[in-house]
Order: sequence, then structure tokens, then C-alpha cells
Amino acid sequence: MADAVGDFLTGGKRLRPGFCFWGHLGAGGSDTPEIVVAAAALELFQAAAIIHDDVMDGSDTRRGKPALHKQLAAEHGERFGTGAAILLGDLTLCWSEEMLVGSGLLNPDAREVFDTMRAELMAGQYLDLLESVSSNGTVESALRVARYKSAKYTIVEPLHLGATTAGAGRDVLEAYSSYGLPLGIAFQLRDDLLGVFGDPSVTGKPAGDDLREGKRTVLVATALERSTPAQADLVHRRLGDPELDADGVAELRDVLVTTGAVDEVEKLIASSTEEALAALDERIADEARDVLAALALEATRRET
Amino acid sequence: MADAVGDFLTGGKRLRPGFCFWGHLGAGGSDTPEIVVAAAALELFQAAAIIHDDVMDGSDTRRGKPALHKQLAAEHGERFGTGAAILLGDLTLCWSEEMLVGSGLLNPDAREVFDTMRAELMAGQYLDLLESVSSNGTVESALRVARYKSAKYTIVEPLHLGATTAGAGRDVLEAYSSYGLPLGIAFQLRDDLLGVFGDPSVTGKPAGDDLREGKRTVLVATALERSTPAQADLVHRRLGDPELDADGVAELRDVLVTTGAVDEVEKLIASSTEEALAALDERIADEARDVLAALALEATRRET
Repeated sequence: MADAVGDFLTGGKRLRPGFCFWGHLGAGGSDTPEIVVAAAALELFQAAAIIHDDVMDGSDTRRGKPALHKQLAAEHGERFGTGAAILLGDLTLCWSEEMLVGSGLLNPDAREVFDTMRAELMAGQYLDLLESVSSNGTVESALRVARYKSAKYTIVEPLHLGATTAGAGRDVLEAYSSYGLPLGIAFQLRDDLLGVFGDPSVTGKPAGDDLREGKRTVLVATALERSTPAQADLVHRRLGDPELDADGVAELRDVLVTTGAVDEVEKLIASSTEEALAALDERIADEARDVLAALALEATRRET
Repeated sequence: MADAVGDFLTGGKRLRPGFCFWGHLGAGGSDTPEIVVAAAALELFQAAAIIHDDVMDGSDTRRGKPALHKQLAAEHGERFGTGAAILLGDLTLCWSEEMLVGSGLLNPDAREVFDTMRAELMAGQYLDLLESVSSNGTVESALRVARYKSAKYTIVEPLHLGATTAGAGRDVLEAYSSYGLPLGIAFQLRDDLLGVFGDPSVTGKPAGDDLREGKRTVLVATALERSTPAQADLVHRRLGDPELDADGVAELRDVLVTTGAVDEVEKLIASSTEEALAALDERIADEARDVLAALALEATRRET
């Protein structure tokens, strides 16, 4: 079981550990082995989340390799693959907490951030799941999912965990929220664009995969708000069709472009990133401020 | 999400909280609100485990009601039901730990017991899953699953958690292991018999459900060791057949009885229970000793 989790951890961008580590340094903490352990625990937590997420979505691939439940299914069949992946996710979830406690940095403030982070991710995923079966799909509800799943879970809460383990005061936490919330939205919007237009060799997923999965993103919701009846009809018929071929992907992409949804989302990414960068002021220690600015630009930039 | 988990918690025998509470009192602890909170956290943990277990097994019912993933599927379809149940299990898993920490009783010894308990349950379930897809199914391997899933997880570790939160020494922990390991085996064997011969109105599951699921229990493994070739062939053909009807159940039951496997398992239950009771000596405080003896008899007695 440990080997399977270990192999799985060799991919990934370590975004959450990065934000936790730099959140710690930005709040006056030092670069110690303890904060590295605490930050790494977030990567275990994320591994647990995506192992389960791939089971829920029935995803075949992750990080350019077969999803864990698929790897396990190849050994002993589908039922084993699903069951074993659920158990491995559970175990990894427990280990993440064990590791964080083991860092010795989990003071009561940090514990509160961690507990909130866990509950909010699960609530965010639950909302996402509800969204995917309900037909409303407004821009507002897609932004709400992005707020919980991306902004809070990926950026704000890792920063807050790093900050509270350094004993940060309220001003630092506020600066991190002002930076992380708009950045998280920008980050998710970039991800939504990549899920539809991204190069499979970069994303590690087949072209147009999010369209086949029927993800109710801000991008799709924006397009629907601006669609002609014929365009809206096309989206409702083809979005989420597991059999969607290259022509179908091209047709849906065309709707997203011609309605102006892509431009609108690019504008929102730019303004949100700008808002995030503006929050990086003297409340945050110098070196961390520079790194956080660079991370913001890297995570939201257009692929060239 | 909280309502769904709350409803789900209204069934159940509260065995693990019971062992934790009496383990605490038997080790010299007092009946305080804190130990009640710590013990109750184990019921949340168990809820998480069975919510996921029912998804893995594709079980339709739990405690005489539809399984949680089935209740959720009735609202928004199968995919939502599975995904939401995985998320609710994850959330409940996190909450169990949050509640235990919140009790204020989780000293380093108790933390070690809790972490071991979680990892061992998941390893036990993984073994069980491997067992169900591999064809060996020996008495020895079935006993190994029973040791992790039942003896350690259901009895020994809850007792140890209760004991360590009371600051117990090594002698009490040893007494609890000597009591809990054989009792857990006895308890699992009784459960195996009920899964095949139990009254649906008592078990809350359809008659012969374990046969339909193809569980590789000690009972089945014992029968296979003692089978004629014709009987073994019958077991291999019908065990785990989801379409098994009342006649099929009766045929398999007949093999379990005529091979002497049922008698053998009843003998093992009796001797294991006796061994468990013998460990209840002066190392354990009086009142708890009496309750633990009563629990042992109640959890292993033959239904009348």
C-alpha cells in the first residue's frame, strides 16, 4: 500500500506545499525541517483527494499515467481497483494528518486552519458534484465552486497553515486572503481554459477532456449566457458526452470562442491576478513576497 | 452533508465506543464528558469505514435501510451517489479525528494507538479485498483478516485507546490484548455464521447475503478443507454468485453443516471466548471487568 502511494506522489506540482512553505517564511518563520514536513503533509492530503476524485469521476489518466484505480484494476479487476483506491485514499488522508501532527508545528490556530481546509475541500467537491448533475450551471455557482475548491483549498489555506505555524498575526492572514482568493479564481480559470484548449503533452490529459466530462466551469457558464439558441442547444447536447470526438470538441471550442467567453475569461484572469499582486505589501516578508508574486504569474500565465 | 452523516449514525451497536469507554474505566479512568467524546469519535470513524465499505462492496443495504450511496443515488443518480458517499466518508474520517483531538485526551500514547488503529483497519480491508479476488482462501488467511479487521480494530485498539487516555501502564494494555484478540476472532466467527444463517430481521441483511457476496470467511475456508470434491465444486461454482436464490443458499448452507464446518466454528467461538474471559483479572478495575465479561458473552452468543 505504501509503495502504491509513494509511486503516485512522484508527479504533481507541489503547489500547496509551496504556498505553505512560503506562507511560513512570509510570516516571519524560518526554513526548518519541521516546516518542510508540515508542507509536505499537504501533498499527501492532495494525493488522497485526487485518488478519490479520480474514482468519483471515473477518470482514466492522471499526470499522464493511468489513474491509480486503473493501475490497480489492471492487477485484479475493476472491483479491486475501485475498492483498493478508496482504501489507499483513506490511508493517505490519515497519513497526511499524522505527518502534520508529527511536524510538531500544529498549534491550535494551525489546527483550526487544517480542519477548515479539509472540510471546505470536501464541501467544495460535493458542490461540484451537485453542480454536475443539476442543470443550472450559472457563472455565479461555478465561481462558488472555484472559490472553495481552488482559491481556499489550493492557495489561501496552505498560506494560512504556513502563517499560523509561524505564529502570524491577523494582518498577515488578511494579506494572504486578499492575495489568495482572487489568485485562486484566476488559477482555476486558467485550468478551465487548459482543460478545453490545452496541449495534451502539457496537461497530461486528452484534448478537450473537460468537455467530455461535462465540467460546468465559469468558461462554459459564460458561453451559455452569451449563446444564441442554436449555440446553447449544441452545448446542451454535446457537453458531457463521453463519446465526443475531435469534431465535437472543435464545435464546442468554436462556441466558447465566438460567444466571447474565452476573451471574457482571459480578462477576468488578468484582473484577478492584478488584484492578487496588489495585496503583496509590507505585511509580508520581502523574500516570500517576491516568490509569491512569481508564483502568481507562473500559475496564471497563458501557455505559449 | 452533516444531516446525511447524522442520519446514518442513528443505527449501529456502538461497540467500539463501548470498548473505549470501559477500557478507560478499567484502567482507572473516570466517567467524564471527555472520555464520552473520545469514545464517540470512534463511532464516527466506524461510520466513515462502513460508508466506504458499502461503496466498495456495492452493498444495497446497511442496518436494515438502503446504504448511504444508494440513498444518495436515489436523489441524483448512481454517479452522484457513489461520489457523494466517498466524500461523506472522507469528511466523517476527518471529523472523527477532529472530535478525538477535541476531547483533549489524545496524549502521545493515545495518538499512537489511534494512528495504528486507522492504518491497521485499512490494511485489514485491503487484505480482505485481495482475499476476495485471489482464489486461495485458506483458514489461515481468513483468520489473518479477522485479526486485523475485527480483533484489533473493533476490540483491542478501542480498549487501548481508552486505557492510554487514562494513562494506563503496560500490564493493563497486555490484559486488554489477551482479552481482545481471541474475543475479536470469536466475534468475527459469530458474524460469519450470522451472515450465512442469520435471521434477516435481526441482521438487517437478506438471508445468505455473505454467500452472494462471496466472502472468504473462516467458515467457508474450513468447509472447503473438509469438502468432498463434489462439495468443493459446488462451493466454487455458487459462492459469490450475485444471482444466488433461496435454493442455492440452502445448498451452500448444507455443505457448511455436513462438512462439520459449522460445528468446528462454534467450537472455536467457545474456546476463544473462554480464553478472552480468562484474561479479565485483577489488572482491570472491578466494574469494568464485569462489563467486559458481559460484552464478551453478548457479542458471541448463539442467536436463539
